[in-house]
Amino acid sequence: MNKNCLILQSGGPTVVINSSLYGIINEAKKHYKNITNIYGSLNGIDGLINDNIIDLSCESDEELIYLLSTPGAILGTARHQLSLDLNDKEYQIILEQCKGYELGYLFLIGGNDSMDTANKLTHFFKKVNYDCKVIGIPKTIDNDLVNIDHTPGYGSAAKFIANTFSELENDICCYQKGKVTIVEVMGRDAGWLTAASKLASINGNGPDLIYLPEVPFDKKDFLNKVSEIYSKKHYALIAVSEGIKDNQGNYIQDAILTNNQNDSFGHAALGGVCNVLSSLVKNELNLPTRGVELSLPQRCASHISSLTDINEAVNCGKYAVIKALNGLSGIMVTMNRSTGINYLVSYNETQLNDVANNVKTFPLNWIINNSDISSEFIEYALPLVQGENILRLNQGLPRYTKLKKIKATKKRME
Amino acid sequence: MNKNCLILQSGGPTVVINSSLYGIINEAKKHYKNITNIYGSLNGIDGLINDNIIDLSCESDEELIYLLSTPGAILGTARHQLSLDLNDKEYQIILEQCKGYELGYLFLIGGNDSMDTANKLTHFFKKVNYDCKVIGIPKTIDNDLVNIDHTPGYGSAAKFIANTFSELENDICCYQKGKVTIVEVMGRDAGWLTAASKLASINGNGPDLIYLPEVPFDKKDFLNKVSEIYSKKHYALIAVSEGIKDNQGNYIQDAILTNNQNDSFGHAALGGVCNVLSSLVKNELNLPTRGVELSLPQRCASHISSLTDINEAVNCGKYAVIKALNGLSGIMVTMNRSTGINYLVSYNETQLNDVANNVKTFPLNWIINNSDISSEFIEYALPLVQGENILRLNQGLPRYTKLKKIKATKKRME
Repeated sequence: MNKNCLILQSGGPTVVINSSLYGIINEAKKHYKNITNIYGSLNGIDGLINDNIIDLSCESDEELIYLLSTPGAILGTARHQLSLDLNDKEYQIILEQCKGYELGYLFLIGGNDSMDTANKLTHFFKKVNYDCKVIGIPKTIDNDLVNIDHTPGYGSAAKFIANTFSELENDICCYQKGKVTIVEVMGRDAGWLTAASKLASINGNGPDLIYLPEVPFDKKDFLNKVSEIYSKKHYALIAVSEGIKDNQGNYIQDAILTNNQNDSFGHAALGGVCNVLSSLVKNELNLPTRGVELSLPQRCASHISSLTDINEAVNCGKYAVIKALNGLSGIMVTMNRSTGINYLVSYNETQLNDVANNVKTFPLNWIINNSDISSEFIEYALPLVQGENILRLNQGLPRYTKLKKIKATKKRME
Repeated sequence: MNKNCLILQSGGPTVVINSSLYGIINEAKKHYKNITNIYGSLNGIDGLINDNIIDLSCESDEELIYLLSTPGAILGTARHQLSLDLNDKEYQIILEQCKGYELGYLFLIGGNDSMDTANKLTHFFKKVNYDCKVIGIPKTIDNDLVNIDHTPGYGSAAKFIANTFSELENDICCYQKGKVTIVEVMGRDAGWLTAASKLASINGNGPDLIYLPEVPFDKKDFLNKVSEIYSKKHYALIAVSEGIKDNQGNYIQDAILTNNQNDSFGHAALGGVCNVLSSLVKNELNLPTRGVELSLPQRCASHISSLTDINEAVNCGKYAVIKALNGLSGIMVTMNRSTGINYLVSYNETQLNDVANNVKTFPLNWIINNSDISSEFIEYALPLVQGENILRLNQGLPRYTKLKKIKATKKRME
């Protein structure tokens, strides 16, 4: 009997989720005696359930190399949650599909929710005594998975954010009467991405104020600080996480808008927290302001991805294959950082049970005075943004991979 | 008597305004027999009036090279408008300052308004019979100056926009039920920047719809097109200029908000036209939407600047010096494109009189069916985004120039 592998991508896309896909394919090819065919599921677990499976073995090496610079999830992503009840009929469909495609290895690239899916599948396969190794490959720009030093995807997003803050600082300081520029960064529950703005201080001043969701946002303290900074510098650069909350746990834009229903704030929520805080500063301090939302480019700006991040994403895919062939299952590949001056990670594993549905927030002892980030964070994050990815261009513009996506053939069931 | 030159930057900063500064300094140094000292005015014409003049001759060649990758206007910018009345007292102050610093050459790097300032100074110097050559060096991401094939600053902004649309397309197509993603691009009066999104079609599909300020925005037609595209593709990528207007010339967000004062639109204007149109699509078509404002990074993303643009900006500075030394004054340096297959520009000049306060809008015959851009534009714009700038990094992050900014010494007036 053949043993085939199936690769799934899910959750929000990043610039390196396709690099992990590359790492898996590339390594699996080397073990063709153990892994006969390499399949991909279109749109995560939905592809398996709905029989949208492609044969990745048909793709050429020349084309696959483009995965290393193609943002987004080339196999398509999903947010499908499997039932907690392992008797649910979806599991039966999955089992039939696994048998039909002779799957012996499932590789799921994703974040929290995807690890939960992988975990459920592991338990199900054990329950029905079906031999299929399940390995999770971490991926999220949010850097909020536990039991791992950092997640693939974070370094590239952090690099984009650090560069953008450096550039914004040089742009907004040109005016005699500059603006209070409030920049909104992704991260509902964890401040890792917003903190990355601090890396801009390596060669410049960096943001004047940085607000993460981990500490309650104090409006009065914020306005006092802005006022003081502006009177000294004639501009201010402020990083805010989209998820900052007041001391009762309400998102700050909701809290401010509720208190100002009939004034000029209106439904500023449409434009997010940067615009609500801009209005606040304008109304309360009478200063010129501008809201800037970094938005989707944070997670798809492949032209400035970190080579370290790409290489690590590839390696996470590679080690997933090796660990599966070594008989491991129900685990997520992890990276541990070695102690010592030089940055070095080793690739280990953690139980899916331990990682699914947990969130790693930003360390409170790295937050200074509610609005600044300590040098410990810079030491932690700086190695992750090193190295420039190779730009793969055609006519001077990015040329991404277009897989052939040839449908895989199921075993004829007797 | 010495003959010194003074360089001024004004208008909105770009990623190549400092490259033109570099071009001027580098060329002026070669002509030290004719140009004794190279001065810079801090914050444009304000620096001259308020005596904030620095001696750029003090800066080292090693440091100046960083100007080629430093975004923003390193000398600071201004939006000061000189009076139409040449008897205004500001002109007298300027004249005294020019005499004090023994200025024989003024180089103004800027857009429309700056060319107007340069023009007024030319007329004033003529009137008072003061021998000072005045040369304008074009700069604007908007590409809206007349008598020039394209403006320095546009190519880099266009490159950022084209790359970002390519990346966004790869990001938003990953979902089974994607979003109508409406991306707001700079450009109040001219659609050149928004049109640059079309370059993403070189290696992909590019935006499904593109709306420029040059043609009135038809809400009904827009909704019909979005509905049709979404039903086929399960997502839509739309580029809109911040300056799109209805058929009466009202900004579209004002027009929509006026008609919907009491509904869920509220004061969406805070978030700009992308959020207003997102609300429109959500309310009228019941589709998931997302507004993305490209915002300031369009004009300061130096990490992805076009090498062609940088070289041309340097050359415009260089030829400004040569033309001034050749006795020209009251002109702006221009670039003319040669006919033929290979892209080639020559550096000529136009009268400031002709360029000041004129706007070059996007050609109507390059707009297809109100919402697409023709291949003529691609042929026009593609050469402008070619070539990657050298990244100048320290610890993996951009290291920009920090000029010493040593105050220049005025001649002791007898």
